[in-house]
Amino acid sequence: MTLSLNQWTTKRWTVREAVEGCARHGVEAIGLWRQNVAEQGLTESVKLVRDAGLRVSSLCRGGFLTGDDALDDNRRAIDEAAALEASCLVMVVGGLPGVVPGQPPGDISRDLPAARAKVAESLEVLAPYAAAAGVRLALEPLHPMYCADRAVLSTLKQANDLAEPFDDVGVVVDTFHVWWDPEVLTEIARAKIFSYQVCDFLTPLPADVLLGRGMMGDGVIDFAPLTEAVLKAGYDGDIEVEIFNADIWARDPDEVLAEMITRYERLIAPTPEPRG
Amino acid sequence: MTLSLNQWTTKRWTVREAVEGCARHGVEAIGLWRQNVAEQGLTESVKLVRDAGLRVSSLCRGGFLTGDDALDDNRRAIDEAAALEASCLVMVVGGLPGVVPGQPPGDISRDLPAARAKVAESLEVLAPYAAAAGVRLALEPLHPMYCADRAVLSTLKQANDLAEPFDDVGVVVDTFHVWWDPEVLTEIARAKIFSYQVCDFLTPLPADVLLGRGMMGDGVIDFAPLTEAVLKAGYDGDIEVEIFNADIWARDPDEVLAEMITRYERLIAPTPEPRG
Repeated sequence: MTLSLNQWTTKRWTVREAVEGCARHGVEAIGLWRQNVAEQGLTESVKLVRDAGLRVSSLCRGGFLTGDDALDDNRRAIDEAAALEASCLVMVVGGLPGVVPGQPPGDISRDLPAARAKVAESLEVLAPYAAAAGVRLALEPLHPMYCADRAVLSTLKQANDLAEPFDDVGVVVDTFHVWWDPEVLTEIARAKIFSYQVCDFLTPLPADVLLGRGMMGDGVIDFAPLTEAVLKAGYDGDIEVEIFNADIWARDPDEVLAEMITRYERLIAPTPEPRG
Repeated sequence: MTLSLNQWTTKRWTVREAVEGCARHGVEAIGLWRQNVAEQGLTESVKLVRDAGLRVSSLCRGGFLTGDDALDDNRRAIDEAAALEASCLVMVVGGLPGVVPGQPPGDISRDLPAARAKVAESLEVLAPYAAAAGVRLALEPLHPMYCADRAVLSTLKQANDLAEPFDDVGVVVDTFHVWWDPEVLTEIARAKIFSYQVCDFLTPLPADVLLGRGMMGDGVIDFAPLTEAVLKAGYDGDIEVEIFNADIWARDPDEVLAEMITRYERLIAPTPEPRG
């Protein structure tokens, strides 16, 4: 089983509760979030996942490289990923400098090419640090609707181009962010995929578009071609279900986990090659 | 002056009122919408714009080609564009078959490549009809957040590729839809631009993301490089301001028109080359 629970799918659970939830439901991997790890304590979190025999499929997240003074915090994130033996550190690169998610633009920069150049520069500094720590950085292109406030990295092609020069820098393929892209299959084929995250794209989007991620099957995405392309590109890691959704967060997390497993098996799980 | 009022910027105005508004404010061109033209009457609308000496910079809109039975309505749209001597008929190509804007997915197709192929097939039929009528079809790539419910055409590159074989098929460059695209300048350079529409991209997006279009200057877009690229590509048509925005629709349309002109002059209007 390659299914992994990204812990924000069951957002109200602490690291301990999410680890215990995975154990109860036979889920063998978990994607952790830094703020939850900090609340649980890093040492305690490391012990919890090790004792439970869980793989840490990702640590979310480093990034926000377009502002100033991001490097120190990213070095800390890399250290945490190393301690947790996370398969990768997910990098959400940040939006236009000065844009605050949820707030109208005040004193911002509208120079998108400059913001993108800043990401590339920051990566030059962080990639060697990550490599020395044995941590893989996974650049996550976000849906273009988040370009201003969360990630100026908007396509898989951009992420692939940025990752190319570095052995230990790759990409996240997240179905929600890339399903619409006419070049998605071509770019998956050339990608160094360090993380494959799945959830559906809901329509209509909710009032807060950040929460437009749905349980697989509830939205508009055709998962099979994407999963097939990811596997064909050589990805053999865990497949993380990461859902931000107010209705799902309001439900009993155990019920969400059970439904996630059912949907995963129906819509995502790689089918073994038939024997000849 | 190349500024054009897209009539949905002053949505509560009829065609007659919008034409009169343009005359009052010295705006020489107007973008019309089919339903408003139908309410005013096609013959009456033609007479109104001619008597006022207005250019019709576009008729919005044909398209929705991914469903069945779209061709007859598109032929009617082409005839209306011909009667109005519109510079182009804007084509919004439609989303995934069965998806209804504003409603959760019911009995839909999730086959995005098939929907895109259907657009190309429909164009093969409509392009000769439009050419015979002397009407130019302008394919509008919409922001990827509308891929499921409004337009499977998500990038300017796709639109350019589709338009290429036909003399009388080109594209709309709409700042709201394309500003995020890492390849936007390259694709503008190769585009047959039949319409340039401007408005800003607001952040945060409002609850209905269709209404996330703002007055130029109120959002995150850097207009100068886009306008410069559009002009460098040879576009010498009108520049249409098209804003869908509940707050703007609630204001006095004359006040909106006055502000639109001020913002246009500050942020959009091409500056004449300095004399050597």
